[in-house]
Parts: sequence; structure tokens; C-alpha cells
Amino acid sequence: MTKVKDIGEQGLLERLQRFCPPDVIGDDAAVLVTDPEQSLVVTTDMLVDGVHFSNATTSPEDAGWRAAAANLSDLAAMGATPLGITVALGLPGDLSVNWVESLYQGMTECLQQYHTPIVGGDVVRSPITSLSITAFGQVHPNRIIRRGAAQVGDAIVVTGVHGASHAGLKLLLDPQIGKHLTTTEQAALIKAHQRPQPRLDVLPHLWKILDNSKFKIQNSKLRINNSPSPQSPVPSPQSLTPVAGMDSSDGLADAVLQICRASGVGAVLESSQIPLPTAFDHWLTSEQALNYALYGGEDFELVLCLPPEAAKTLVQQLGQDAAIIGSITSDTKVLLHHQNQKIPDQVLNLSQGFQHFSP
Amino acid sequence: MTKVKDIGEQGLLERLQRFCPPDVIGDDAAVLVTDPEQSLVVTTDMLVDGVHFSNATTSPEDAGWRAAAANLSDLAAMGATPLGITVALGLPGDLSVNWVESLYQGMTECLQQYHTPIVGGDVVRSPITSLSITAFGQVHPNRIIRRGAAQVGDAIVVTGVHGASHAGLKLLLDPQIGKHLTTTEQAALIKAHQRPQPRLDVLPHLWKILDNSKFKIQNSKLRINNSPSPQSPVPSPQSLTPVAGMDSSDGLADAVLQICRASGVGAVLESSQIPLPTAFDHWLTSEQALNYALYGGEDFELVLCLPPEAAKTLVQQLGQDAAIIGSITSDTKVLLHHQNQKIPDQVLNLSQGFQHFSP
Repeated sequence: MTKVKDIGEQGLLERLQRFCPPDVIGDDAAVLVTDPEQSLVVTTDMLVDGVHFSNATTSPEDAGWRAAAANLSDLAAMGATPLGITVALGLPGDLSVNWVESLYQGMTECLQQYHTPIVGGDVVRSPITSLSITAFGQVHPNRIIRRGAAQVGDAIVVTGVHGASHAGLKLLLDPQIGKHLTTTEQAALIKAHQRPQPRLDVLPHLWKILDNSKFKIQNSKLRINNSPSPQSPVPSPQSLTPVAGMDSSDGLADAVLQICRASGVGAVLESSQIPLPTAFDHWLTSEQALNYALYGGEDFELVLCLPPEAAKTLVQQLGQDAAIIGSITSDTKVLLHHQNQKIPDQVLNLSQGFQHFSP
Repeated sequence: MTKVKDIGEQGLLERLQRFCPPDVIGDDAAVLVTDPEQSLVVTTDMLVDGVHFSNATTSPEDAGWRAAAANLSDLAAMGATPLGITVALGLPGDLSVNWVESLYQGMTECLQQYHTPIVGGDVVRSPITSLSITAFGQVHPNRIIRRGAAQVGDAIVVTGVHGASHAGLKLLLDPQIGKHLTTTEQAALIKAHQRPQPRLDVLPHLWKILDNSKFKIQNSKLRINNSPSPQSPVPSPQSLTPVAGMDSSDGLADAVLQICRASGVGAVLESSQIPLPTAFDHWLTSEQALNYALYGGEDFELVLCLPPEAAKTLVQQLGQDAAIIGSITSDTKVLLHHQNQKIPDQVLNLSQGFQHFSP
């Protein structure tokens, strides 16, 4: 008898995909065309006490904030504006009501920034605390950001620094390791872990840039050979969004690899261009810093692939820590290039991980 | 420190409502106005192994069917057509993959009847098996069926028999008690428990009847003093749906009481009119039969309040076991009248329950 642990959560999800229509899954969220002008975007997450959050490192307010942020980030990664979330809770009878209210307080604080209501929920008895959030949003069908739409020649943009959330978690687990950091630096890294910001603010900039006819025309040429799923309505090439992307919740390396796999392309990343927290400079070796940035996860930034001119404009408009970190190639590999170091390019690979990084 | 068990799940839900906008909660599902022509309806449920399902009485296929049916029933109770569901699973590593696939098989079998896809999900590690489903559907804003819209004089319609699901559960727990029933009768009651049908089929009949101008005019007179939530757009009186309702998932008594509380009205039910499974006639006392019907729950029929003429037409069209079981009164109590028995009317009350029923 095959058990869940024998094939893992990812293996099980793959087996269960045969119960789902092939054209709505495999992205940060599902897209349902309900209307010619608006598609419904839906994403769901379950979080279990001791697995995804723990009172040791996470207050109930922060657990709530992080859960809400993760779901809003999935919507942002699809280009969607949030409409609301539902919250289902499984709770042991001995849990304090105050804990639950604090969890809701944290969720609400995150959601209110984006005028997103909690529109419903369920509370049930359970031997273990667990939390399931479903977020839904809407997007014009021509503005859906899909993983599988990256084009050879696209620039790869990240909307902010990577590695901060992982560093914050490390500091919470072992404050000792931060003794060479200033209090401000420590607080900033810990905040990056406890209160990540979904990057919904990026979308208006992106649409404004892409509505510029220059990029539209450029894109219509690139996209004409694309083959959308046969079950989806086929938009005219001019109307397709010239942007692919996802969020970096599972790490920057994962995001680039997933986009490349879904798009049937490769990428070259320039290690020196990956934006890192400034505190890393005098704290971590460059190898550690890159490990945190590529594999740490939970930074909840967007990783976007778009035509180079549009990418430059986007990075300028976002300012701060947004950067072009590489480009999409016709290869099938994702290479990490080290401009300033005398080490060869490395092939990024999730199963192999970054442990093999050595000069 | 107040604990969850001190105030119960319902008490906690009430406390958490302050985090939600007041105009979207308190019904079978939340309604979000996304468009003048379509509202989005969302409902969510969490089910926990040992609390809501158990391998003792429920195969994984049946657990999946029931979970899907309960969510589709909530959509039907709002007048909404389903668009899709998401499924989040918490699973122990030792669970068999086959169990999970069977759960999905059962969900899919129920959903396929209504062309409803599973559009996304999450699978996570958890010490206990749990399942969270979020279903979403759409409805024209003028056709939303709300609990709080019952009017004095409305007839109360149930779309089918009550008590069958509870009887089926009893038979599964103790097959001995069914020895006076035929195999067919036993199988029918068990099926009612294991494979309940959400009554989405009722909606087209309902709209056809209510689109008849006779009922529309009648309703515009009744509804003119209604005060919709100040945050919702106010439809013209002619366009309001002359129907209130919810599903009977928590029992028929609960449904009528909830509708009356939300509408600020009362009701008189005629006990002899409540449709019961025919097997009850030679199996249960009339007291037991009424107890099962009123308090058993999980029959997933619709309880609808609408003008008497429209109600008669609906019952005729639905045929089978649909019936008018009473009417809405200007009282605030829900009375159970016993036409054929020499016992006084009883006041239905959830906290008191039906144990006090005695001649």
C-alpha cells in the first residue's frame, strides 16, 4: 500500500491533478473565465500548527498576517486584484479565544491594506489547530500573469530583495547569530519574516507600462506562435499580456525554475544582480547570502519575465530593491553566472539544491 | 483565560464576525457584488477525521461526496450556480494514497452531475486528516435567496423528505434496528445519508415560476418596505426575488428557526404535512419520525418561503416529495401544529430541542 509519505505532498498533488480540468491548474492560482471582461482567480492554502507555524517563532498575529499575505501574494502573482478571503479553522477546545482573535487581528491588519474583507468561514472542533484560507480575486482575461508565458529574450525582474525572510527566521530561532548586526538590521530582517508584504502594489505600474503601445506591438510579434490551451478561449495575439511570472514564496530559484519549466525555456541569472539585504554584506559569506536568496523562500516578491525595455521601465518605477537579475534563453537549463568571480556557471536544480555551490 | 470550549464554535464564530463586513455574512454563503449582472457567492467548510467523518460509517468516496454535496447545497440555498471548488487537505504521512484518491473520486462523482470542476487545492502534512472545501458560484443579484427575506403570508416549501439521512446513519451504526425494514428501504435510507443530493435542480423551476409576472407584481407590493443593507445597492422593489430560504443541512427545525429569526417573523408548521420516508410508517413512532425529520439534519433539501400561489406551482412541478409544510406568521414563534392529534401546538426551540415532545 503506497502511503502519502512515500510519494510526498508534491507527488500526491500530481496524482490528484487527474481530477481537475487541465487548463485551470499549475499556476499560483486557478483562473475561471466567468465573463469576457473579468476572470475569477482562486487560491487556497492550509496551515497546520507545528508544521507551518509555531508559537515558538510566530505570534498568532504574525501567523494570521503571514497566512493572509501568502494568499494575496498568489493573487498578485496572477495579476489579480483581491475580492475577499474565506477562513476555515480547526481548533482544539483548550485553545484560548484570545489566540484566535489575535490570529484574526493579524489577518485583518494585512488585508486592510488592500481593502480585502474576510467574507466567510467555518470554525470546527479538531485535535490540532489548523487554518485554511481561500482567496479570490479578479483580473481582466488579457492581464493574467501566467508561469508558462516567458519568451526567449525576456528580462527577468525581481521586485525586491531576497533572503531577508529566511535570515529573519534564523535570527528568531537563534538570536546569537545576529550579534554582528545592528538592532535596526535585526529588526528589519525579523519583520521581513513576520510581516511579509504581498506585492499587489506592483500591478498598477505593470499595467501602465504594458498599456504603452510600444510593448504591445513588440509582444504581438513574439506571441504569435504561442499555443494556448485548447479549452481556453484564444485571445488575439495583440491582446496577450507580454508578461510571465509567479511569486517567490518557495524561493527565487524555485520561481525561475518553475517559470522556465512551464514556458519550455531556460534562463541565465547574474548572481551579482540579485538584490540582497544590505545587512548580508558584513554578516554572511557570498555563498551563504546567495543560498538564502535563492533557496530561503517566503520573501513573497514577484518574479516577472517581460520584454527588456518594459523591464527597465518597471525597475525604474518600482525603485528601491527591484532589479533585472537575468534573461530568458532558448536553453532548457537555468544557469547562474558569476560575473565578478572566477568560478564557472552553475546549473540551478531544485532536487540538487545549492549545497553544491563551491568556488 | 476563556477557552474555545467555553464559548463553543458558534460563540466563537459570533465573536469573529467583528472582523467581517456585516453585509456579507450570516447566510449559507457570502455574496460579493462584483458586477451589476453577477454576484459571486462563496462558502467554506472544514471537515476533520473523527469529528465530521469516520472510516467506521463512511468510506472515503462517501466522505468526498458528502463534503462536495454540502458545499453545493449551500450554493443552491443562495440561488447560485456553481463555478468550482477548491480542496485543501491536511494528511498524515501514513495515510494511504488510495484513500485520498477515493476521497477525490467521491467528490468528483458528486460534482460532475453539476459540471463543477475542482479548480485548485493544497496538500499539506498534518497529524490528523482534515479537509477544507471552498465552493463558489454565481447568481444574478436579483435572484439571491436570503434567509432574511421571508414575508408574512409566505408558504413554506420543503423540496423533499426529511429524516432519511439521520435514519441512514442510525442503520449504519446499528444494523439491528433495521430488522423490520426491507432491504430496499434500508438501502434507500443509507444512500440518503451517504450520497445526499444538493438541490441545484430546484433553481430553474423556481426562476421560471418567479419570472411569471403575476408573482412579480404581487411581490412588489409586499417588498416595498424592506430595508436592504445600506452598503448594498438597493434594487427596485419589482426586481427583488420574492423568495427566502436556506438548506436543511442542520435540520428542518433549525432552517425554519433561522429563516424566521433573520426575517423577524414567525411560522406555523403542520406536522402531518412534513414529508417523511415511507419506511418510517411501519418502523418509527410518530414522535420518533418527527424528531428525525426536524432535528436529524443532513437531508440537504431546500426550505423556501414564497407567495402561496408560487409555492403551489413549485410543489406541483417538483413532484415527488416536495410539500408545503406551513406558513410565515407575524408572530415571532415557530409553532408546530398537529392537525390530526389531540395535542396542543408546540413552540419549536433549538436549545430546548424536541425531547419535550409528549402528548
